Amino acid sequence: DFQRALAEVQPAFGVQEDTFEKCLPNGIVDYGATHRHILQTLRLFSNQVRDSDRTPLLSVLLEGPMGSGKTALAATVAVATDFPYIKLISPEDLVGFSEGMKCNKILKFFDDSYKSPLSVIVLDNLERLLEFVSIGPRFSNTVLQLLLVLIKKPPPKGRKLLVIGTTSNARVLDSMELVQSFNATVTVPLLGREEVAAVLTKLEAFNPADIPKAAQAVDEEGIGIKQLLMVVEMARADVDDSGKISYRRFVECLKDCGL
Amino acid sequence: DFQRALAEVQPAFGVQEDTFEKCLPNGIVDYGATHRHILQTLRLFSNQVRDSDRTPLLSVLLEGPMGSGKTALAATVAVATDFPYIKLISPEDLVGFSEGMKCNKILKFFDDSYKSPLSVIVLDNLERLLEFVSIGPRFSNTVLQLLLVLIKKPPPKGRKLLVIGTTSNARVLDSMELVQSFNATVTVPLLGREEVAAVLTKLEAFNPADIPKAAQAVDEEGIGIKQLLMVVEMARADVDDSGKISYRRFVECLKDCGL
Amino acid sequence: DFQRALAEVQPAFGVQEDTFEKCLPNGIVDYGATHRHILQTLRLFSNQVRDSDRTPLLSVLLEGPMGSGKTALAATVAVATDFPYIKLISPEDLVGFSEGMKCNKILKFFDDSYKSPLSVIVLDNLERLLEFVSIGPRFSNTVLQLLLVLIKKPPPKGRKLLVIGTTSNARVLDSMELVQSFNATVTVPLLGREEVAAVLTKLEAFNPADIPKAAQAVDEEGIGIKQLLMVVEMARADVDDSGKISYRRFVECLKDCGL
Amino acid sequence: DFQRALAEVQPAFGVQEDTFEKCLPNGIVDYGATHRHILQTLRLFSNQVRDSDRTPLLSVLLEGPMGSGKTALAATVAVATDFPYIKLISPEDLVGFSEGMKCNKILKFFDDSYKSPLSVIVLDNLERLLEFVSIGPRFSNTVLQLLLVLIKKPPPKGRKLLVIGTTSNARVLDSMELVQSFNATVTVPLLGREEVAAVLTKLEAFNPADIPKAAQAVDEEGIGIKQLLMVVEMARADVDDSGKISYRRFVECLKDCGL
Amino acid sequence: DFQRALAEVQPAFGVQEDTFEKCLPNGIVDYGATHRHILQTLRLFSNQVRDSDRTPLLSVLLEGPMGSGKTALAATVAVATDFPYIKLISPEDLVGFSEGMKCNKILKFFDDSYKSPLSVIVLDNLERLLEFVSIGPRFSNTVLQLLLVLIKKPPPKGRKLLVIGTTSNARVLDSMELVQSFNATVTVPLLGREEVAAVLTKLEAFNPADIPKAAQAVDEEGIGIKQLLMVVEMARADVDDSGKISYRRFVECLKDCGL
Amino acid sequence: DFQRALAEVQPAFGVQEDTFEKCLPNGIVDYGATHRHILQTLRLFSNQVRDSDRTPLLSVLLEGPMGSGKTALAATVAVATDFPYIKLISPEDLVGFSEGMKCNKILKFFDDSYKSPLSVIVLDNLERLLEFVSIGPRFSNTVLQLLLVLIKKPPPKGRKLLVIGTTSNARVLDSMELVQSFNATVTVPLLGREEVAAVLTKLEAFNPADIPKAAQAVDEEGIGIKQLLMVVEMARADVDDSGKISYRRFVECLKDCGL
Ligand SMILES: Nc1ncnc2c1ncn2[C@@H]1O[C@H](COP(=O)(O)OP(=O)(O)OP(=O)(O)O)[C@@H](O)[C@H]1O
Ligand SMILES: Nc1ncnc2c1ncn2[C@@H]1O[C@H](COP(=O)(O)OP(=O)(O)OP(=O)(O)O)[C@@H](O)[C@H]1O
Ligand SMILES: Nc1ncnc2c1ncn2[C@@H]1O[C@H](COP(=O)(O)OP(=O)(O)OP(=O)(O)O)[C@@H](O)[C@H]1O
Ligand SMILES: Nc1ncnc2c1ncn2[C@@H]1O[C@H](COP(=O)(O)OP(=O)(O)OP(=O)(O)O)[C@@H](O)[C@H]1O
Ligand SMILES: Nc1ncnc2c1ncn2[C@@H]1O[C@H](COP(=O)(O)OP(=O)(O)OP(=O)(O)O)[C@@H](O)[C@H]1O
Ligand SMILES: Nc1ncnc2c1ncn2[C@@H]1O[C@H](COP(=O)(O)OP(=O)(O)OP(=O)(O)O)[C@@H](O)[C@H]1O
Ligand SMILES: [Mg+2]
Ligand SMILES: [Mg+2]
Ligand SMILES: [Mg+2]
Ligand SMILES: [Mg+2]
Ligand SMILES: [Mg+2]
Ligand SMILES: [Mg+2]
Repeated sequence: DFQRALAEVQPAFGVQEDTFEKCLPNGIVDYGATHRHILQTLRLFSNQVRDSDRTPLLSVLLEGPMGSGKTALAATVAVATDFPYIKLISPEDLVGFSEGMKCNKILKFFDDSYKSPLSVIVLDNLERLLEFVSIGPRFSNTVLQLLLVLIKKPPPKGRKLLVIGTTSNARVLDSMELVQSFNATVTVPLLGREEVAAVLTKLEAFNPADIPKAAQAVDEEGIGIKQLLMVVEMARADVDDSGKISYRRFVECLKDCGL
Repeated sequence: DFQRALAEVQPAFGVQEDTFEKCLPNGIVDYGATHRHILQTLRLFSNQVRDSDRTPLLSVLLEGPMGSGKTALAATVAVATDFPYIKLISPEDLVGFSEGMKCNKILKFFDDSYKSPLSVIVLDNLERLLEFVSIGPRFSNTVLQLLLVLIKKPPPKGRKLLVIGTTSNARVLDSMELVQSFNATVTVPLLGREEVAAVLTKLEAFNPADIPKAAQAVDEEGIGIKQLLMVVEMARADVDDSGKISYRRFVECLKDCGL
Repeated sequence: DFQRALAEVQPAFGVQEDTFEKCLPNGIVDYGATHRHILQTLRLFSNQVRDSDRTPLLSVLLEGPMGSGKTALAATVAVATDFPYIKLISPEDLVGFSEGMKCNKILKFFDDSYKSPLSVIVLDNLERLLEFVSIGPRFSNTVLQLLLVLIKKPPPKGRKLLVIGTTSNARVLDSMELVQSFNATVTVPLLGREEVAAVLTKLEAFNPADIPKAAQAVDEEGIGIKQLLMVVEMARADVDDSGKISYRRFVECLKDCGL
Repeated sequence: DFQRALAEVQPAFGVQEDTFEKCLPNGIVDYGATHRHILQTLRLFSNQVRDSDRTPLLSVLLEGPMGSGKTALAATVAVATDFPYIKLISPEDLVGFSEGMKCNKILKFFDDSYKSPLSVIVLDNLERLLEFVSIGPRFSNTVLQLLLVLIKKPPPKGRKLLVIGTTSNARVLDSMELVQSFNATVTVPLLGREEVAAVLTKLEAFNPADIPKAAQAVDEEGIGIKQLLMVVEMARADVDDSGKISYRRFVECLKDCGL
Repeated sequence: DFQRALAEVQPAFGVQEDTFEKCLPNGIVDYGATHRHILQTLRLFSNQVRDSDRTPLLSVLLEGPMGSGKTALAATVAVATDFPYIKLISPEDLVGFSEGMKCNKILKFFDDSYKSPLSVIVLDNLERLLEFVSIGPRFSNTVLQLLLVLIKKPPPKGRKLLVIGTTSNARVLDSMELVQSFNATVTVPLLGREEVAAVLTKLEAFNPADIPKAAQAVDEEGIGIKQLLMVVEMARADVDDSGKISYRRFVECLKDCGL
Repeated sequence: DFQRALAEVQPAFGVQEDTFEKCLPNGIVDYGATHRHILQTLRLFSNQVRDSDRTPLLSVLLEGPMGSGKTALAATVAVATDFPYIKLISPEDLVGFSEGMKCNKILKFFDDSYKSPLSVIVLDNLERLLEFVSIGPRFSNTVLQLLLVLIKKPPPKGRKLLVIGTTSNARVLDSMELVQSFNATVTVPLLGREEVAAVLTKLEAFNPADIPKAAQAVDEEGIGIKQLLMVVEMARADVDDSGKISYRRFVECLKDCGL
């Protein structure tokens, strides 16, 4: 059923449980090959950090449109490493802090990680950590310079660190040389219609007959998994006798949300 | 009569009564289908927040020209939710505060909302909260970054929050990625001549025969409900024997106000 | 005679007498229809504030070239309202204050006005209050944002406020959305040759025969009333036997002042 | 002889003698009609301030290329007024002061002037007072806004003030609306060849036969009186038997100074 | 074997051992003529400083793409000088410091060097020391001006100093006149396919037969030695029976890292 | 021999010996007519200051490419004046100072100079004193405005001052009106091949037969005397049996230094 489908990936949270849990309000739905390939690549990097002594520092950037699932994936992989030090650095936790204090916090988290034999740090929503806005453009060069150095600074002897960044504005990060500072970049795309159908099927909230139509109603350029799950949830407010979401209602909700 | 027409919607104010009352100096006049559709969409979002546990945070942006009625509608809907925590964050209340203090205030209001099971926050006149001016352009990136995060940050477990924003400069907010941070955008347009006639009829301040002519005097691009009510009020200073506003007087007042 | 002509309008000053008096060093000369229409429009707004309870806040912007008489008119109308609280906020009184202190002062004057049942505030020379300079351009966004809010913020229940602004740079204020924040804009133009003749006649300082020639000497684009009165005054240093200004002298003074 | 020629105008210095004396290291040489017309116009303004009660404030701007004699003329006229308060505000005296302190000083001098029945203030080298540089361009908007107001602010009742400004960059001051804030602008040009000959003749340092040739050696666009006097002085280091400067030497010195 | 190949250059670290060791996590592999020529040129400069009394200050800039081996080379040469004062100034050690403190630190290191008869200072990653970002562009002019002076300032009598800078953005440093401030510039290029083959051969981690194919898989524009060694290390996670890296695995890792 | 050639000009240093000595690490080699003409012009100005009472302040700007010998010439001339107060204001001595402190220092040196009957101040490397960088461009307007005033401010009565500035970026100083503030500008060019030959001959470090070839190896656009002497010094590390530098070695060193 719906609950179960969403619960497919239910990680046992290590450090900082609450924060990571918050990143996965709707669990992880396996929507196909793309999804699995992303997870596999991320796992490759975390294994490499764990197993080799000659790559004590590796960094991966998850980039993709708003709502494509970057934060959820980063959190999932981070928790799955089971490293003793796991930290999600999120703009939400730094809200209201000055540039300088943000830098102190970030620096502190990296310093803490250097004390653990194995660590993973997620730098979530980099453009927000950088306080970027395209008008100007403006951003905190203080935070940027800090990150440019920290992402490439190897931990002390005997320590190992995996850094995962997420962004929905890779083009800007590229012109800041931040993309190049990561060892690898992985793209998290919007869901195509086939993948939408896969998700709707797993959720079991539609009449199977409605699923192709519903998937077809989605914009050709795709939809973020986050937006898709929100629209489904809104449409559930109005279910038919069989307890299934009506196709018409789903389309209305898509439209209300400008999707 | 005039008074009664304006009193059509007379909400029982919950929290922060004075402030919300100030947003509705002339009540809410139902000027037709557009008006009702806006209200209905807003209600859909507030119901969803109240009823579903999987959408603890929803946000809607009301955008439209100066005086089209955005603040009045946001206030009306906010009060109508009957949520235990209702807060209007208005530039008027933050006048004279530094950027930093504005941020503190805004942050405080969101933190307060997180303590209530159901909350609604109105961010009124976003371009003013951001201290935006198109020369430069300049604005407070500190406030912007705060809002970009707060609008997307889910409340703690078991809490639910509806955020309503208003702006008359959606194009700029879009280039700040602020529009995209809202789950949905609703446009509040100027009143066309038919809608003007509907309002004038409800107000009962004209001779019915004058109403079509008066509506025709309005600019083809439409007029804000706020400006329309002001011009009517100015024209009332000079009524004929029947106590009705003269058409000529109405047109003069339109012109004096550059409408 | 000269003195009497200038004394045509000799207002009994209410509050803050000295300041307002300074704005009218040469009284108000009625130079014709344009002048009377401006005064009438301004009076319409002040009456509306006084008489209607539904328009507790009205704002008018006086715009026109340097020296066209904006400050003198604003002062005249403000004093003529006979409202218990009358305040002229002038850059001259804020000279040497920091941006922040200027804001505090302005805010204080508005807060004071909210304590009086009827108030009028003149914001004289807005581009100077904003510290505007077209190179850059630069200006105080702090003062601007304050004014953008205060000009639209209704006074508390039972209080009424008329705001009169003056500027010789409406184009810039328009791009700051400051013009649109006023309910109406009134243009105070330069004096054409006919109006110059009217003023010279009233002043009785010329031989009637010289007046048409003198008026013709003025630039085709017109002349500000302030500059006209200054040139007349300079020319008076050299009068003929009849005690009248010579036409030649008048023209020389025009030229010395680059008019 | 040389000394006497330079001593032609030897003003009896009133207030602040030293400063004004420094502005006239080489006295004032009458080089012809242009020079006399400038002096006459300036005198017109100072007489007007002294004699009329209706023009308590007048302001004149002296503009012209580097070294054309603006400071010397302003000082000469200021001293010649014999007003009880005479003040030269020069960048040299404000060297090393912060923007804020400069403003305080300037404000203080104007406030002092308001205590004297008759005052003259020279604002020497306005682009330097404004800390202007064309790269950027950059300047002190704080000083600019202060001057824009002070130059137009009438002194208190019964006080009279003449303001003389000097600048070699009127174009920039114009785009700052500073030129328009003065009641009149007077141009101090470079010396043409005829005027150069007049000066050289008065100085009696050349063989009369050499003077036309020497004047011809000067750049077609003219030369500042300041530069001319310096070159003559340099050439005097090498005089012939008759104690006269040789033409060749004069030309060499011109060239060494890039003139 | 692998270990031995990497250990080819195993310098005995003098001063500040840890830091320099960190710059050589994988030792120095001799990949051919280019490599040897770079080392030779650097040695020429260090010998000149040591041997001549007329060149007490020499400075060399190592420039080349990210990962081409600049830091490792600079560290190797610095240590090889065996000068009593050796200092690596790296952005990693200045992380979290303000502009001012960075300057103090840098100044301190230079002052310390002036106390030693023979010193070498490495300014690693100059664009990072300068906090440069191409958006804007922005950078610390304070640090820049300090470096522009220090790089050209001769040590006190009897002291000698070699300065080695590294950068991956010589074009920008050139427009800052920083490149010109060095006495010489040496380019550290990416490895071509032949050089890649040389490295892979030395590492003995491939089947000799696979080496040409593996080298061919590398981008035509070349690869940094740093990236090459990292990819080899990642590929080693999956070796065949003979303990050698499979060609396919190597190619996959190249692709995962976007190379 | 070599030593003697360099010692050609060995000034007896007056005030601040160490600093001036540092500017002449390689003495002054007379390389021909250009060199002598520069020295003569500078001497003309210093004599004029010393001998005439009507030119108490003169200022000269030495401009030319990096390494052309400006600082050495300024120091030589300054010392040769034998004035009681001689001061070299060099960026090297102001390293690590804030803008404000730099201004204080500079101001102090000028104030000190005003106490001596005869003074010479060298403002070395003006673009560095101004903290100029062409990206932006950025520079210290505070220092600039100070210099613009100080360079033109005559010393007090009875005092005399010669100001010598040096710069390798006259174009920028021109756009800052700094060039125009000097009374004269003297260009110090690169050495042409003939002048290079003259220097090499004087140094006696080559086989006479090699000198024309060596001079020919120099870039057509010329070479700075500073770079030339450095390259010679580097080439001396490898002399033949006769103790002379080999032509081949000289060319290699030129190339290593990118000349
Ligand atoms: N396969 C999946 N991958 C990612 N997220 C998934 C997947 N399946 C379900 N989800 C859910 O979708 C949502 C993805 O939202 P998430 O915040 O991770 O997106 P995002 O790309 O980080 O958004 P933003 O650009 O706004 O930061 C989460 O609620 C997560 O629980
Ligand atoms: N149907 C309606 N919708 C909105 N406002 C209405 C309506 N009927 C009457 N009003 C009145 O019209 C006015 C609308 O003004 P409001 O301040 O809400 O406009 P606004 O779009 O927020 O203006 P601004 O762009 O200046 O912020 C209020 O006085 C409100 O009482
Ligand atoms: N009809 C009139 N309207 C306005 N001013 C008049 C009139 N008749 C005479 N005056 C006199 O003309 C002068 C107008 O100057 P005022 O300072 O008001 O002009 P302004 O437009 O505000 O100038 P600025 O653009 O410099 O602020 C005053 O001295 C006033 O006494
Ligand atoms: N007729 C004259 N007018 C002005 N200055 C004269 C005249 N005759 C002689 N002088 C002398 O010429 C010099 C003029 O220099 P001054 O500093 O006034 O020029 P300036 O235009 O202010 O220069 P700058 O543009 O550098 O400020 C003074 O030394 C003054 O004594
Ligand atoms: N011949 C070589 N030259 C340079 N480095 C080598 C060489 N052989 C092996 N290495 C290893 O290659 C790596 C080069 O990395 P290094 O950090 O020096 O590159 P970089 O150009 O400074 O990179 P970045 O541009 O990121 O600063 C080091 O781990 C070093 O041990
Ligand atoms: N004729 C000469 N003129 C100038 N310098 C000479 C001459 N002969 C020998 N030298 C030597 O040449 C060097 C010139 O260097 P200097 O620092 O003066 O050049 P610069 O133009 O100031 O360089 P930069 O542009 O880097 O400031 C000094 O070491 C000086 O001793
Ligand atoms: Mg995210
Ligand atoms: Mg509103
Ligand atoms: Mg005015
Ligand atoms: Mg001057
Ligand atoms: Mg490096
Ligand atoms: Mg130099």
